Amino acid sequence: MTHNFCAGPSILDKSVLNKIAQAYSDYNNTGLALVETSHRTDTFMEIIEGAQQLLKELLQLPEHYEVLFLTGGASSQFYMVPMNVLNENQTAAYINTGTWAQKAIKEAQLFGNTKTIASSEEAKFTYIPKELPTTDGFRYLHLTTNNTIYGTQYRSGYPQVNCPLVADMSSDILSEPRDMTQFDLIYAGAQKNLGPVGSTIVIINKALLGQVDRKIPTMLNYQTHINRGSVFNTPPVMSIYGCYENLKWIKEQGLDNIRDRNKAKAELFYNTVDKLSCFYTTVAKEDRSVMNATFHIKEEAASQAFEELCKEAAIVGIKGHRSVGGFRASMYNALKLESVEALAEVMNQIEAKFG
Amino acid sequence: MTHNFCAGPSILDKSVLNKIAQAYSDYNNTGLALVETSHRTDTFMEIIEGAQQLLKELLQLPEHYEVLFLTGGASSQFYMVPMNVLNENQTAAYINTGTWAQKAIKEAQLFGNTKTIASSEEAKFTYIPKELPTTDGFRYLHLTTNNTIYGTQYRSGYPQVNCPLVADMSSDILSEPRDMTQFDLIYAGAQKNLGPVGSTIVIINKALLGQVDRKIPTMLNYQTHINRGSVFNTPPVMSIYGCYENLKWIKEQGLDNIRDRNKAKAELFYNTVDKLSCFYTTVAKEDRSVMNATFHIKEEAASQAFEELCKEAAIVGIKGHRSVGGFRASMYNALKLESVEALAEVMNQIEAKFG
Repeated sequence: MTHNFCAGPSILDKSVLNKIAQAYSDYNNTGLALVETSHRTDTFMEIIEGAQQLLKELLQLPEHYEVLFLTGGASSQFYMVPMNVLNENQTAAYINTGTWAQKAIKEAQLFGNTKTIASSEEAKFTYIPKELPTTDGFRYLHLTTNNTIYGTQYRSGYPQVNCPLVADMSSDILSEPRDMTQFDLIYAGAQKNLGPVGSTIVIINKALLGQVDRKIPTMLNYQTHINRGSVFNTPPVMSIYGCYENLKWIKEQGLDNIRDRNKAKAELFYNTVDKLSCFYTTVAKEDRSVMNATFHIKEEAASQAFEELCKEAAIVGIKGHRSVGGFRASMYNALKLESVEALAEVMNQIEAKFG
Repeated sequence: MTHNFCAGPSILDKSVLNKIAQAYSDYNNTGLALVETSHRTDTFMEIIEGAQQLLKELLQLPEHYEVLFLTGGASSQFYMVPMNVLNENQTAAYINTGTWAQKAIKEAQLFGNTKTIASSEEAKFTYIPKELPTTDGFRYLHLTTNNTIYGTQYRSGYPQVNCPLVADMSSDILSEPRDMTQFDLIYAGAQKNLGPVGSTIVIINKALLGQVDRKIPTMLNYQTHINRGSVFNTPPVMSIYGCYENLKWIKEQGLDNIRDRNKAKAELFYNTVDKLSCFYTTVAKEDRSVMNATFHIKEEAASQAFEELCKEAAIVGIKGHRSVGGFRASMYNALKLESVEALAEVMNQIEAKFG
């Protein structure tokens, strides 16, 4: 059994993968593979509407939220959010918790003013800044709920704000029950806990829209996709189908159980790091991500031995992001506790030899 | 056997579908499904680079062309082309051959001036306008090589122009050998002859870029994706893999053979329409599309009987686009001659009863 710690595209449950594979032959006795089927058919409309409904149900979204299936990844939302929401003379506040937040700030600057009201850059993004100045007067505050590269995550609630709250939830949406009504706009690339790579989910409080002066290209206007139920043009059919199947899997598991399992995996991992002298993490204890645990090994020789042992144990995707080095264990919903046990076992072996 | 005449997403060869399905379990003995694999791995880099190389080979593209795998469909290229190429004080020429051309014109108007230098709108888009005024002084001329909705296609070459030529080739790229060096920018949604829905191919003569004044969001700048080989952010991994497998299939078949087969299918279909009194097409003979044949049935009773017989014969996706009504037989590369024979057989049965 391979233990898949990839940061994304990442692990999905086997049952979900089998469903998608099956849809490439005969889908639901239609005589066609789903990928060969028009997106205007009842067959596909049931899938996309089902996926939207189920996501609303799992996230307990009130009626005034819309769920969109778009493309282009979270990277496209970095500019689509300000393009749709921020006027040229307005200011959007950002919390800088690392690479993805910085990219979001850079794109917003093309459309209006931005102000970074909190940052952990001075400490190499090893914590989540919690003290914020007032958010009065900002068009919105943008934050990244989980920082895949640095291994930090909001673990004890989100800031209380006096402006709309926008969140990049790419790497921790649906990892636990969460009050989504705190947020006015949420976006996430599908390829972690939502489903297979290829679509991007945007959840919007409709009240946020219709207030910018600029002309927006049709495909980049959220309203286009709201009006047409995300099928204005050909959507990423197979990714949306995979999301639907994965959402059904999440529902079967129960989001409470998923949270408990994610917590158990993270506890096992961080307890192992804390107990072993060869390993360390620079992330502030209260901000350690349940999804992406970043860590380091003190000695180069131990580091090499660790990589070799991981390979032997079929542990893959454990290298840190190329911009920060070190190691990273991504422990998304579909990763089993036994995979973290396998990793802990390898870490203990390293400790026995180098500790 | 189901006969799939869907206009898109559309038929792919079974061998290609089987390859993609297989990649959802263990890909190439990596122990992981491809969809669970990071796009930064050698595994995926071989796929995307392989697909780019193979597309260049099949289309015989010289070195100064770049091949990009993006998302958002051709609908996103309607604005990305002018955003990247057309300055505010410049004018782009368009040929209006129907819905998709009109949508492209609408988006270009957000970025600069447009001039429709030829149109078949007065004849409900039943032909391709061939007489053009001079194209001196335009930033580019944009045309749609095949019009999926109206069933028209450039069959006897493209206009000679004095400016760069831009083409939406969504529904007929790779349907025949074609001199691509006539064009400076070509775009196409993948979901017809290129591969499975979920990616969008852009082919650019690099000389066209770097000449606009506006600031372009990072993700919308062609140069971003050229610089990063289409993996600036997480690309649509599975659609790209499917394209690669489909391109390999095209290479095995040979593009000459594909052209001959497409021609044989179209001839059988149009000969049948021309010979039978119950059926007709409004498309000018010389502009009839080899990919999407639109047609009508004179009597309502015959029309209903036709739909029923199609159902019995497992002929699907035969209804015309909702904006024009009637019927449409999309005959993409993977459709077999026997499927057109099955359709012709049903048409002959209708003639026997209603003719």
